[in-house]
Amino acid sequence: MKRVAICLLSGGLDSATALYVARNQGYEPIALSINYGQLHLKEIESAIRIAEHIRIEHQLVSVPLPWGGSALLDSNIPIPEERDASEIAQGIPSTYVPARNTIFLSLAASFAEVRGAEAIFIGANMLDYSGYPDCRPEYFRAFERLLEQGTKCGVEGKVIMINAPLVHSKKSEIIKLAVQLGVPLEWTWSCYKGNDAPCGVCDSCILRAKGFQEAGIQDPALISKNI
Amino acid sequence: MKRVAICLLSGGLDSATALYVARNQGYEPIALSINYGQLHLKEIESAIRIAEHIRIEHQLVSVPLPWGGSALLDSNIPIPEERDASEIAQGIPSTYVPARNTIFLSLAASFAEVRGAEAIFIGANMLDYSGYPDCRPEYFRAFERLLEQGTKCGVEGKVIMINAPLVHSKKSEIIKLAVQLGVPLEWTWSCYKGNDAPCGVCDSCILRAKGFQEAGIQDPALISKNI
Repeated sequence: MKRVAICLLSGGLDSATALYVARNQGYEPIALSINYGQLHLKEIESAIRIAEHIRIEHQLVSVPLPWGGSALLDSNIPIPEERDASEIAQGIPSTYVPARNTIFLSLAASFAEVRGAEAIFIGANMLDYSGYPDCRPEYFRAFERLLEQGTKCGVEGKVIMINAPLVHSKKSEIIKLAVQLGVPLEWTWSCYKGNDAPCGVCDSCILRAKGFQEAGIQDPALISKNI
Repeated sequence: MKRVAICLLSGGLDSATALYVARNQGYEPIALSINYGQLHLKEIESAIRIAEHIRIEHQLVSVPLPWGGSALLDSNIPIPEERDASEIAQGIPSTYVPARNTIFLSLAASFAEVRGAEAIFIGANMLDYSGYPDCRPEYFRAFERLLEQGTKCGVEGKVIMINAPLVHSKKSEIIKLAVQLGVPLEWTWSCYKGNDAPCGVCDSCILRAKGFQEAGIQDPALISKNI
């Protein structure tokens, strides 16, 4: 019997790798991408391309958050630039989107319940982003407890597991795993800005570049764009 | 200093009363209504009218859930009709929307964090709908634990309280409270169907009628429509 997993797919390197991990673990993955009003909506194009590539079902949900409160939603809030990894790891940056993973996981949970999925996969990792509270294992465990209490399948004793397979991984380890699993890294989009090419200076670009450097691999997204 | 509360306002009797309770407790309420693709979208008109009436800020968020799985989302799934209150209280009906309150509360939490709100008010009650798992106090406590773990304000020690003031109330008690607080009950919309007038036979119409009968009050929504 097939085991279905809902895989949150932003179009970035981590979520694409988490999707491939789910597939590699024998799940039938269904991708779920969410337009929450992010300025770097370009990542959704990457998500579509990746899901089409491996021929899986892909659901898009649109829920633009009108209240802003994040540099990813409001162009008047500056995106931090040119910080090194140790600076990025300090505190909660302006790119934090209030309750974003809670919104994402609640939508994934609704979809999972309708489809009888056993798991939700999310590409969150806590090492690079220790400041994001909703990327920590204790948060995912709290979400599992919530689903036990607040869903039909939960009260019937059926568990929906929140699987964050990369939560303890370094970016370089994620990249090596992605290469091993055949993730089309050249299509993934990490930059917080929605320009034609990655900016190279936002936290996300800096962590990606550092990860590729430490993995000893050239970033195919930059090669394919001749950057 | 003003204490802000985000009040989930569907446009029904319970959520409108919960909003008035928040106001009565001294909160500055901000209403939040969510179009999740419900066939009875008419309730949103009621929500708009009520929020305008008491001149409060009102935010609308649209997140149509494409996966169906509920009679409230999919017109191919029948809405139960002509059940008495004891039948309605048994099991989880086809009008259950998977993870609906989790989606609603996650959006409310995001909004609450951006606005520095101290509480989220929700009109859920467990007596009439014992079958809905996401209407129980233990579920709301689990959601508070989740927000402690998964939000910036939570990790900084600031609590967002999930306040379900009607959770233990009978419908007749809610109606009496609503009358006492001046809730414009004639504008509230409870029917699961989106017709011009309430159908009178869905669970929601039946519980409403029973509540008014037990409270010894005529339903002003029916009087104003000459039903």
